[in-house]
Amino acid sequence: MHDADDDQWEVYLAGEIHSDWREEVRRGIEERGLPVTLTAPMTDHAASDDCGVDILGAEDSKFWHDHKGAGLNAIRTRTLLERADVVVVRFGEQYRQWNAAFDAGYAAALNTPLIILQPESCDHALKEVDRAALAVAREPGQVAEILAYVIAKD
Amino acid sequence: MHDADDDQWEVYLAGEIHSDWREEVRRGIEERGLPVTLTAPMTDHAASDDCGVDILGAEDSKFWHDHKGAGLNAIRTRTLLERADVVVVRFGEQYRQWNAAFDAGYAAALNTPLIILQPESCDHALKEVDRAALAVAREPGQVAEILAYVIAKD
Amino acid sequence: MHDADDDQWEVYLAGEIHSDWREEVRRGIEERGLPVTLTAPMTDHAASDDCGVDILGAEDSKFWHDHKGAGLNAIRTRTLLERADVVVVRFGEQYRQWNAAFDAGYAAALNTPLIILQPESCDHALKEVDRAALAVAREPGQVAEILAYVIAKD
Amino acid sequence: MHDADDDQWEVYLAGEIHSDWREEVRRGIEERGLPVTLTAPMTDHAASDDCGVDILGAEDSKFWHDHKGAGLNAIRTRTLLERADVVVVRFGEQYRQWNAAFDAGYAAALNTPLIILQPESCDHALKEVDRAALAVAREPGQVAEILAYVIAKD
Amino acid sequence: MHDADDDQWEVYLAGEIHSDWREEVRRGIEERGLPVTLTAPMTDHAASDDCGVDILGAEDSKFWHDHKGAGLNAIRTRTLLERADVVVVRFGEQYRQWNAAFDAGYAAALNTPLIILQPESCDHALKEVDRAALAVAREPGQVAEILAYVIAKD
Amino acid sequence: MHDADDDQWEVYLAGEIHSDWREEVRRGIEERGLPVTLTAPMTDHAASDDCGVDILGAEDSKFWHDHKGAGLNAIRTRTLLERADVVVVRFGEQYRQWNAAFDAGYAAALNTPLIILQPESCDHALKEVDRAALAVAREPGQVAEILAYVIAKD
Amino acid sequence: MHDADDDQWEVYLAGEIHSDWREEVRRGIEERGLPVTLTAPMTDHAASDDCGVDILGAEDSKFWHDHKGAGLNAIRTRTLLERADVVVVRFGEQYRQWNAAFDAGYAAALNTPLIILQPESCDHALKEVDRAALAVAREPGQVAEILAYVIAKD
Amino acid sequence: MHDADDDQWEVYLAGEIHSDWREEVRRGIEERGLPVTLTAPMTDHAASDDCGVDILGAEDSKFWHDHKGAGLNAIRTRTLLERADVVVVRFGEQYRQWNAAFDAGYAAALNTPLIILQPESCDHALKEVDRAALAVAREPGQVAEILAYVIAKD
Repeated sequence: MHDADDDQWEVYLAGEIHSDWREEVRRGIEERGLPVTLTAPMTDHAASDDCGVDILGAEDSKFWHDHKGAGLNAIRTRTLLERADVVVVRFGEQYRQWNAAFDAGYAAALNTPLIILQPESCDHALKEVDRAALAVAREPGQVAEILAYVIAKD
Repeated sequence: MHDADDDQWEVYLAGEIHSDWREEVRRGIEERGLPVTLTAPMTDHAASDDCGVDILGAEDSKFWHDHKGAGLNAIRTRTLLERADVVVVRFGEQYRQWNAAFDAGYAAALNTPLIILQPESCDHALKEVDRAALAVAREPGQVAEILAYVIAKD
Repeated sequence: MHDADDDQWEVYLAGEIHSDWREEVRRGIEERGLPVTLTAPMTDHAASDDCGVDILGAEDSKFWHDHKGAGLNAIRTRTLLERADVVVVRFGEQYRQWNAAFDAGYAAALNTPLIILQPESCDHALKEVDRAALAVAREPGQVAEILAYVIAKD
Repeated sequence: MHDADDDQWEVYLAGEIHSDWREEVRRGIEERGLPVTLTAPMTDHAASDDCGVDILGAEDSKFWHDHKGAGLNAIRTRTLLERADVVVVRFGEQYRQWNAAFDAGYAAALNTPLIILQPESCDHALKEVDRAALAVAREPGQVAEILAYVIAKD
Repeated sequence: MHDADDDQWEVYLAGEIHSDWREEVRRGIEERGLPVTLTAPMTDHAASDDCGVDILGAEDSKFWHDHKGAGLNAIRTRTLLERADVVVVRFGEQYRQWNAAFDAGYAAALNTPLIILQPESCDHALKEVDRAALAVAREPGQVAEILAYVIAKD
Repeated sequence: MHDADDDQWEVYLAGEIHSDWREEVRRGIEERGLPVTLTAPMTDHAASDDCGVDILGAEDSKFWHDHKGAGLNAIRTRTLLERADVVVVRFGEQYRQWNAAFDAGYAAALNTPLIILQPESCDHALKEVDRAALAVAREPGQVAEILAYVIAKD
Repeated sequence: MHDADDDQWEVYLAGEIHSDWREEVRRGIEERGLPVTLTAPMTDHAASDDCGVDILGAEDSKFWHDHKGAGLNAIRTRTLLERADVVVVRFGEQYRQWNAAFDAGYAAALNTPLIILQPESCDHALKEVDRAALAVAREPGQVAEILAYVIAKD
Repeated sequence: MHDADDDQWEVYLAGEIHSDWREEVRRGIEERGLPVTLTAPMTDHAASDDCGVDILGAEDSKFWHDHKGAGLNAIRTRTLLERADVVVVRFGEQYRQWNAAFDAGYAAALNTPLIILQPESCDHALKEVDRAALAVAREPGQVAEILAYVIAKD
């Protein structure tokens, strides 16, 4: 008989790419030895912008330059969203992060459990997104705590 | 034999609620006599914020005040998103409109055709969302033109 | 162009069958002239228990007597749950109403919007069920108010 | 060529948390060396009630205290229900166990095979739930026997 | 507010084509004025065998003669099975009726409520098929009674 | 009781746009008075090429000119393919008609019944596509005959 | 980079249980070293009939005796059908094998590739079932040959 | 904690079989050590044409000769398309490659990320197919670069 604790959970960390919150989540998971595979969208901002033209050739128009890159990013994002057992989406004050909200909507339509990580200052603006989530956390460490509770607590 | 032009199309108009863009789309559709049912999220901002506590009772905490209202809004939004043949999402410069991006993601996961309506100034920030769409329009009138082409052109 | 207010909503009223709460919801909907079709499980308790043997022949064993009836009830319940745009589930203090919770779980798996109607005394026992709902109401009249807000508010 | 007996079966043990029935099922599976991974909802009652506020911060209202905890429990429950090959749900006389019936309804909507474990005294009250099941057992040992028959009998 | 009794139910009558059982079901439904649309596979045996070659050209081989006809029959059968709210499958003693069992399996995979109509002499041979059904009836009149109970009983 | 003959069938006519085969199918359906709604992709070749830039603005690059138009065409095609009860795809000798084969693959993945209309000269090249179909016809009139058999034959 | 030949295929062998055809398929697969996991319904006829009452207690009625056993068999069959990459169904002359046809219908609704193994004498009676299959074989060895071609041929 | 880079990606290489483009993709993947399993349809043209009659017996008619082979090819193709995380489809100037476009449509309906590999000369003819793709590449090496970016870039 296998031990359920050995079942691997795949957790997709969507949203904000300008702080090291993913590393904090990762540390919390490693410290607890949880059977979690962390995945994420492309977090190298420049690569995310230019990947399309770098690989497939330059575009005169900025719109199509962006469009080509967004196509490649979507190959990654869609596949990882479809695979994820849990989707965590991080919002911050400084950016509009429409991708983050898009990924949250995508996960909600798939009925995949959703955790939102956001400062209180965003609460009102995010109320509809939060309503689709099963948890709203304030700190990356809380995400690791939630996963420890969900996966490894007997 | 029925005429395909009689088939009703249901079009959900998501996103920005501070201008009259939905009325412009409606006028364009009425002028052309298209067999379209237009639906939308709650566009009365105050009602959208307070519906939960108005109907189900007050909350001390702002967070749960919002949460209750967002639940009622979601009953409407989810049902109309699931029913829609086409989803149109309007973004503007002034607001973060995370709901708009959430609805776009939801529609994308359902594989429902998506039209984004946005000013050029948002192009870069919306590139991942736009990549999931089948059209990016600049003016509400273009949405009506697209629907006329898609539904009624022989 | 059709008016979205003409779109019919199908609302399934599951759960408790010993009070007239369904009539209260119906009155609230009729007063407001909402485009709603109300459906329900079999609410005639005796018929619900004996329909199987009445139509298909007697059983010596009480277990199979019940089993035959439950099969017929399920033909109704499954079909109406699958069709419903919104599922309302009523819980009360006096009964275990496992059917009610079963129907709520069924609706949750289908990602259908769920409204729970319950007295405060059941709050703790129902917390997991409530978490899957988009609204928890206390009075049947609130269900009609919610539907009026969701369907007919501009 | 792999041997089908090596295919792992994931079995979710839902419902009653006040007796050691899960251990009895586990012993029966271990004795027979079946390739089964057993999973379960949170069975530590206090943790299940307080996990939300312990990790995400206190709430003044008991309703939202419960709501926060139920969200975390749902991350676990939904994921394990979606993964399960077979869902076993245990009902007892003393508790209303609406979660148990909710999980049974969720599994039924997913068309996942369902085994109900219940005393005879609950038969009439559970008839609609039982009708959705492929077996109604009386003792935990019977669940292990069923799994042995289903998985390992040539 | 619409009356739920006006909702149309589509009932597919699969299986045996050598007796007038479909007419008996139809009479029972007409007498009760039920809002039911009855559908069926091709019941003209000769047409069912020869439709392919009659419309699309002769075949030398009997196997491909049959294959062409079966393709046309499948266009009808699949569409009506997918649309059906309830599937009724009639088995008799004289024929192998593999189509009937195939249609029952198809409906079971779609989670569509299934009623089997069979003589007692077939009970043992049909036990696995019956287990997937919500009712096993003996007479066509019982099917009409079941539908009356399920659809029109308050 | 409704008559099944009144159920409307939606039939999507995909593929070749350079002959009047759709009119021939339409005539055959009208002559027989079948309850069929015929739909089709955009069959005005110039409109299909230029719709994107006509409505949404010119592009310097031919690739993006085409891409914009193809997006609008896809709004129509996807919606009609998803709605169709039956998909008919016409291939001819002169064109590569990759859209036609794409639509056939899309329908096959949806498990929607597929009829292919093709000259014998294409048989070998189309063998994998034909294998996914339930009928291979040679003349438009045969499509109408098939629909008459499938829908209206008692 | 993994080699595609290492991907495991799960093949469900449904139908007739009175000859050793499954062993012949197994031998053909072992000789070729194919990465195949073979699964099957319960092939011990007596166990299949009595498993329900043996584990869950005796029944006076033969119908419910059978029903209890069929429930346990369905736990196995449904799970393995849902998992299978390919379903093979064997029909013979002597038995009605409604289970076999039921399993074929179930697989067809899931869009799972289907291979039918049958003597020529059954061809006409099985024409509708065969039409849903991607191959009709005559000998068990051909099934192994087909799998070798499909899985391992470069 | 597992490393996401260890998650295996399954990539199906559909389309043209007359050049060694699959080998070029494979080399690019091996050089980068990507965790990719490459799969493909049958690329041995003669085997693909004759497999049906070779294994299942000769046919007089060329149409049914092809039909039998296409059935076996479909067992492979459907299974690998359903499993694929990413589908790459190669078009060339010389062939009509309707299979390629069929596979692209199949993948699009499944919402699986699609990469098209084509010369510029095919751009106009492929515009509708390309619109469903997330990338249009010109050289096999670009496919490997895209996969490296999508899977392994941090």
